[in-house]
Amino acid sequence: MATLQGKALVAQGGGPTAVINQSLVGVVAETARFPAITHIYGARHGVRGIVNEDFLDLGQMTAHNLDLVARTPSSALGSTRDKPDAEYCKTMLAVMQAHDIRYFFYIGGNDSSDTCRIVSEHARSIGYDLRAVHVPKTIDNDLVETDHCPGFGSAGKFVAQAFAGANLDNRSLPGVYIGVIMGRHAGFLTATAALARQYTDDGPHLVYVPERVFDPERFVADVQAVYARHGRCVIAVSEGIGGKDGKPIVTTLKPGSVEKDAHGNVQLSGTGALGDLLADLIKEKAKIKRVRSDTLGYLQRSFLGCVSESDAIEAREVGGKAVQYAAGHQACGSVAIRRVGEYVVEYDLVPLEAIAAKTKHMPDAFINAEGNNVTDAFWKYARPLIGTLPPSARIGAPPVAKLKTK
Amino acid sequence: MATLQGKALVAQGGGPTAVINQSLVGVVAETARFPAITHIYGARHGVRGIVNEDFLDLGQMTAHNLDLVARTPSSALGSTRDKPDAEYCKTMLAVMQAHDIRYFFYIGGNDSSDTCRIVSEHARSIGYDLRAVHVPKTIDNDLVETDHCPGFGSAGKFVAQAFAGANLDNRSLPGVYIGVIMGRHAGFLTATAALARQYTDDGPHLVYVPERVFDPERFVADVQAVYARHGRCVIAVSEGIGGKDGKPIVTTLKPGSVEKDAHGNVQLSGTGALGDLLADLIKEKAKIKRVRSDTLGYLQRSFLGCVSESDAIEAREVGGKAVQYAAGHQACGSVAIRRVGEYVVEYDLVPLEAIAAKTKHMPDAFINAEGNNVTDAFWKYARPLIGTLPPSARIGAPPVAKLKTK
Repeated sequence: MATLQGKALVAQGGGPTAVINQSLVGVVAETARFPAITHIYGARHGVRGIVNEDFLDLGQMTAHNLDLVARTPSSALGSTRDKPDAEYCKTMLAVMQAHDIRYFFYIGGNDSSDTCRIVSEHARSIGYDLRAVHVPKTIDNDLVETDHCPGFGSAGKFVAQAFAGANLDNRSLPGVYIGVIMGRHAGFLTATAALARQYTDDGPHLVYVPERVFDPERFVADVQAVYARHGRCVIAVSEGIGGKDGKPIVTTLKPGSVEKDAHGNVQLSGTGALGDLLADLIKEKAKIKRVRSDTLGYLQRSFLGCVSESDAIEAREVGGKAVQYAAGHQACGSVAIRRVGEYVVEYDLVPLEAIAAKTKHMPDAFINAEGNNVTDAFWKYARPLIGTLPPSARIGAPPVAKLKTK
Repeated sequence: MATLQGKALVAQGGGPTAVINQSLVGVVAETARFPAITHIYGARHGVRGIVNEDFLDLGQMTAHNLDLVARTPSSALGSTRDKPDAEYCKTMLAVMQAHDIRYFFYIGGNDSSDTCRIVSEHARSIGYDLRAVHVPKTIDNDLVETDHCPGFGSAGKFVAQAFAGANLDNRSLPGVYIGVIMGRHAGFLTATAALARQYTDDGPHLVYVPERVFDPERFVADVQAVYARHGRCVIAVSEGIGGKDGKPIVTTLKPGSVEKDAHGNVQLSGTGALGDLLADLIKEKAKIKRVRSDTLGYLQRSFLGCVSESDAIEAREVGGKAVQYAAGHQACGSVAIRRVGEYVVEYDLVPLEAIAAKTKHMPDAFINAEGNNVTDAFWKYARPLIGTLPPSARIGAPPVAKLKTK
């Protein structure tokens, strides 16, 4: 295919991650290597910035600014929750045509890949030459066709370090601790809570993901069993856990306690309701007095200064690869990560239709038979993705013989 | 005074911090330099480990183990919420006598210093020679007589990095964000949320501390004003904010929504109630749709891998100094930090009576006239304490001229 001459446009969609700007910088830096790409524009606040013609001329960023922005969490261009329909995509394309934009890079999750697909198809239908490549990111790790998603590893590192600390805290002042983790449909991020365990009695002792039906009675029994054994219990639970009816458990435990968003989805993040309800359940049914809950919230995706080394590298690389596929190969698609060794990866381009609007769930092999913990297979899959963890240790000293018997 | 010959005992009390084990290791390492101290024991779970004679022989820790334990957050010996009365202290002293313990180091906050005082006075009254030194720690920074408390800087670093990320997140997807921070009576930790601000429009835009009466109507008006100006608003609020009646605001906004602990204190931590109530208030009264709240919870005090460099150094040093004062000077008291330059500190010993059971609050100079933000004076005081922050940057690129007018 002939090399298209024209401008490139990059945008960021959906929830931020700690490394989404690595991908942005990967795109910007790589476009400079293709003379056919005359300019690299960035749309502010995702697709909304395209319909509003709100562009920045990213070719004027200095190399040093690129380096610093890459290390900054959360979408530097701004993001949006807009989900374009056909009409919206038409407007986007009209703006792109006006600016002679021939390369479109959209960094985002499921919805963003679907937007890429619609824009790409519409361009083809009107005979406008456009290369559209989706650059994957999501802390939920729920995109199909890729081994894992950029953004997941750093969020997982945060969750693992949070639970490593919560476990030490709980060991120091025993009781029950519940940490609620993001993830509406996929339990990958919740499962990373287990990755910092060292000793066999380290928490989290129980892990509940949305892939399994959550039974409040079983939950109470699980907690009682762990508490009887260790005198304490640390629990990781996904915000998306649902009951037999498939509805979020928070709506079952307390109807009307959560609001719905513009898409009709129950709002699960940005509220401590689930953690508080589960804590109340334990206090009431298990008769345990010291029960605390934290909802990790937005810190998981945007905390400054918690980045997985491999995640940062891969996020940068998928941005660069997107440009290579679009400008070098003149192809459209979504960049995927393939694991080819322990631990090394390669990159690939998959058709937009193959991943758009699809959701990956935790495979059965990653969840134990009881549905209340993760397996070694999950550990092997996810441990390389979160990078190095800070060291920690228990005191290595023998007890002193008692002189008084009390 | 003659140098007492005998064993030393160290214990940790109250809530953990990220550097409380630096102080533990500071004590253990320094005792090895005093031949008069024959053994160094550690009591498990604070004063409870003393009455239960539950000791570890810390002299048998290797140098490497000491180094790793020092870098581990949360009390490695275990902690307790027990608050000893006179009878309890008598039992503690009987156990100490049985083991010929002549040096007692208690790492903790207000309550721990008071325990030190009672034990020390009781020993004197029965003619038992004992050197008792309190080693300060608390994330709340509410001890008097010391410039600041070990543990505060690292918790402040966590809070600052959390708000730096939350601000970037909020800038990317605008709305109102409320972060609830620990601190029942003192607002120091809440105020650290402001320390990562760089640009004048960076959040947190509003900071509410327990030192000022919280007026829900004023709060709504404050948020509306910021939102009108920036199209977004990031808020840091202390869990301890109270109304005109002096009661925690969470009990006013929703009576019966929180439980009371063994001491009759309303439980403020380990629940998302306050954040959710404030978010509801904004949605309802300010008619702003996208409002999210996080309660930073236990992560503030025990997150693995977020330590202020100066805090780690000082926490180690107050442990070592405690031994120097007790064994070298044969004195009792509490170790205090004096700021003698920008930024350097020295150490001092103050009488236990001067600090025991007293609480320091934010001075007026640290809070703005409106009572909804911090001042430059606070910044100057607290910025050196939280150490280095990871870099972050905005995109430095000009807008592109519009070709289509929409």
